[in-house]
Amino acid sequence: MNDQTDTDKMNGADSLVQTLLDSGLDTCFTNPGTSEMHFVAALDHVPGMRSILVLQEGVATGAADGYYRMAGKPACTLLHLGPGLANGLSNLHNAKKAGSGVVNIVGEHAVTHIELDAPLTSDIEGIARPVSHWVHTSLSAADVGADAARAVQAANVAPGQVATLMLPSDTAWNEGGTVAPALEPAVRPAFDAAALAEAVAALSGPDSLLLLGGAALSAEMLEVAGRIAAKTGCKLLSEWANARQERGAGRVVVNRVPYPIDQALETLAPFKRIVLVGARAPVGFFAYPNKPAILTAEGTQITNLCTTGQDIEAALAALCSGADATGTAPAHVAEASTPDKPSGPLEPGGIAQALARSIPEDAIIVDEAITTGRAFFPATAGAPKHTWVNNCGGSIGYGMPVAIGAAVACPDRKVMALVGDGSAMYTVQALWTMAREGLDITIVIFANRVYKILRGELTNVGVSNAGPKAMDMLSLDQPTLEFAQMAKSMGVEATQVSDCEALELAIETGLAHKGPYLIEAVM
Amino acid sequence: MNDQTDTDKMNGADSLVQTLLDSGLDTCFTNPGTSEMHFVAALDHVPGMRSILVLQEGVATGAADGYYRMAGKPACTLLHLGPGLANGLSNLHNAKKAGSGVVNIVGEHAVTHIELDAPLTSDIEGIARPVSHWVHTSLSAADVGADAARAVQAANVAPGQVATLMLPSDTAWNEGGTVAPALEPAVRPAFDAAALAEAVAALSGPDSLLLLGGAALSAEMLEVAGRIAAKTGCKLLSEWANARQERGAGRVVVNRVPYPIDQALETLAPFKRIVLVGARAPVGFFAYPNKPAILTAEGTQITNLCTTGQDIEAALAALCSGADATGTAPAHVAEASTPDKPSGPLEPGGIAQALARSIPEDAIIVDEAITTGRAFFPATAGAPKHTWVNNCGGSIGYGMPVAIGAAVACPDRKVMALVGDGSAMYTVQALWTMAREGLDITIVIFANRVYKILRGELTNVGVSNAGPKAMDMLSLDQPTLEFAQMAKSMGVEATQVSDCEALELAIETGLAHKGPYLIEAVM
Repeated sequence: MNDQTDTDKMNGADSLVQTLLDSGLDTCFTNPGTSEMHFVAALDHVPGMRSILVLQEGVATGAADGYYRMAGKPACTLLHLGPGLANGLSNLHNAKKAGSGVVNIVGEHAVTHIELDAPLTSDIEGIARPVSHWVHTSLSAADVGADAARAVQAANVAPGQVATLMLPSDTAWNEGGTVAPALEPAVRPAFDAAALAEAVAALSGPDSLLLLGGAALSAEMLEVAGRIAAKTGCKLLSEWANARQERGAGRVVVNRVPYPIDQALETLAPFKRIVLVGARAPVGFFAYPNKPAILTAEGTQITNLCTTGQDIEAALAALCSGADATGTAPAHVAEASTPDKPSGPLEPGGIAQALARSIPEDAIIVDEAITTGRAFFPATAGAPKHTWVNNCGGSIGYGMPVAIGAAVACPDRKVMALVGDGSAMYTVQALWTMAREGLDITIVIFANRVYKILRGELTNVGVSNAGPKAMDMLSLDQPTLEFAQMAKSMGVEATQVSDCEALELAIETGLAHKGPYLIEAVM
Repeated sequence: MNDQTDTDKMNGADSLVQTLLDSGLDTCFTNPGTSEMHFVAALDHVPGMRSILVLQEGVATGAADGYYRMAGKPACTLLHLGPGLANGLSNLHNAKKAGSGVVNIVGEHAVTHIELDAPLTSDIEGIARPVSHWVHTSLSAADVGADAARAVQAANVAPGQVATLMLPSDTAWNEGGTVAPALEPAVRPAFDAAALAEAVAALSGPDSLLLLGGAALSAEMLEVAGRIAAKTGCKLLSEWANARQERGAGRVVVNRVPYPIDQALETLAPFKRIVLVGARAPVGFFAYPNKPAILTAEGTQITNLCTTGQDIEAALAALCSGADATGTAPAHVAEASTPDKPSGPLEPGGIAQALARSIPEDAIIVDEAITTGRAFFPATAGAPKHTWVNNCGGSIGYGMPVAIGAAVACPDRKVMALVGDGSAMYTVQALWTMAREGLDITIVIFANRVYKILRGELTNVGVSNAGPKAMDMLSLDQPTLEFAQMAKSMGVEATQVSDCEALELAIETGLAHKGPYLIEAVM
């Protein structure tokens, strides 16, 4: 396609698609509109791009987030003008916080049309900027290819960035499109070598903590961290939310700093010295009256050896070597274990047992189970090897879209999406895309029929006398949301369960099923 | 509540709710989170605010838009931080383009917490600005009341504006809240009196057009426009999309400039002189290759007598008087008419007939029927008096949320939401809120199972050879969306019809039904 004769005949949209392919992007999540029709047409002219239709853009951006976490390379989204981007904004917020690379292609009016202030005209760059690391509007068809290559380069900056490219419709339909070669990825900065000696000295005994995040939670890096812990006696923890963590029998166990403010403070209180590798010093998810916002104990020595965008593998290797732990066997390696068969009504403990008994080897667990999910992590440590995926930005409605992206990235692995009912409703349109693409996703909806997390937070923020109107704003029970029925209406097989035995059976059915399967777990 | 003793004990959230009430706002559409818990608690302390829970913020902002159009005063939304606002952004775009006043209250982290960059931290003002006329962040509990009064004042600037107030959680929970009195609404600017003589001279004969928008489409103003048309022989049209237009038997008929570019150009070609009252000179919804973006014929004299934010009533009165038409009987008054009973498969013409036969007196029709809906306007001109509501911003997913707001504003009127299947899926969560609140809304979903408008637009933008991958991105048929089943899963009674007789019967059933009723019209 780089042949000059072809290029002369090429419009901007064709050059865009070919450049994205040449830069390694071959997956697009989209809900296109009129201004994106030439990109859509290019899908047939330029072979190789898998394009996946979604019914609302929050599904597209969440899917791109999940895709990056599992594929290790960006997907693109194709979004319709400012409002299409706006609908995808909250899952871009989550992607940004997770360090996921995403290339957003956003249609824009033709340059001459913008000034006319048509109904769909908006400040697209303004909408993009709060959730993007890189924002650019192409000015002509000839620029589109080179701009696209730069967008991909920006998205690949470690650990991954959100790059948003606006494509005015005339730059898509005009001829003169020129395919641009892939740009060299940016070199990942080195870790802070000046902090190494302090970090090595800090890790000694159970009052010291190695706090891990980002790429430090890969299977290989966890093993290195396990050696350091074995040698120095330091504890290991990760942040509350991780973009991707490898877990299961044979892997080094790393628990998370808890979400509830009091538990988090208690967990971190013993540590006098903390070394950060790919993680940030823990702060409260929210501010609460009369509670500290910084979760580490006063006077704790914090050594930031390596940020999430720096060379985490080199940092952990140096730390391991500095601690003279390279020959040490890792501590905290999980033994294979299967909990007892749970029975009776659904409550977090029993659900966690059923889950731990069901996780298949190499499963990807997308966790948006909120309150119900707090019991899952300990129970599943000894399950077969699997990948755990958290919401890093706190905007609910991330789970089912991210599961789509993970399933597209890893067609040979089973995906489980564990989602609270309140969260599921945010991007429930995701079910249709799962069915359309035949994705192997088992979705478990925890239907406690309340925004349960907020019941707890009311007290935490000092509301002691919540009245009936307040409680009504946290309730999802009038009318009852029938998730199994809703899933079927979008082409997804589904069932409803209300005890642990049925849940375990349903999970087995779902995992054996080809395509998506939804389980409504009524609590 | 203005008593000094009470005020001393009041937190910022309580002062906010009381100030909003004192400024005339008594309706709140919300999905709150931790940072909004004190506002939620205040709903019980401070009586008078009706708070309506939604499952996704696009429903909240769309409902506020619909509420303003029908109540003529703003509602507030209560949104959770940047992502909650972001989810509501596209319907705020529509509200902004419709000239609807909305007061967004957006929770923000406590001031001391923002700098810690917690997961939910984002540039909320940056997210708000592209869709807001007024943006402010409160700095202390003592400021909240006065800031809220200013937000309401900003939202009430004619024709209506989007005002977004960020409330850091400490300003909500700290004591020292002070209720602020309502501020005087801004005076609506006068119309352009200097343009009056030219406008009067311009309107003469069928090659002159009075183009109406905004408040010019009220029943009273339409009558004035009808007098002018009778006296001068000018034609009457409105913009393609209107926030609210009064219609039906006994009212002056004003058709809209068509959406399809070729039809729009043809409609406007005959006019040598156009006078604008509350409308803007028509431009294309999109730019298209080799077609003009400005829809009026070259050389057309355009006189802008009055913008949508100016005194439209005075402008039309002056125009009527200048044309010596105050004693003239209005032209184009619709006679009551009932089309023949339609039969056979569902197609736009028959659907329009069924609709025209069913519209009850005083109905509110929220029209997001896209391609199917193009036949509705002419067929319904002689139906009983009703209000027609369009999407002014072009971002789909506005229909069902706006219907919620209209139904809340007008509990004694029947609301009909006419929605394309693609549009309906954008904010399908709206159905649950309709059921929860028992709103009298009859929803008709036109299930053609395709983004049909885009099939036409492909050709308009010059794509003549769309391949199978492109067509696949415009199709909604794999799997089939079962809307009746989906509605039932959210507590809404529903039925599916596939011919005109069944549609008419189903509409009758829906209108007689207490609470929402959904009709899936399979085309």
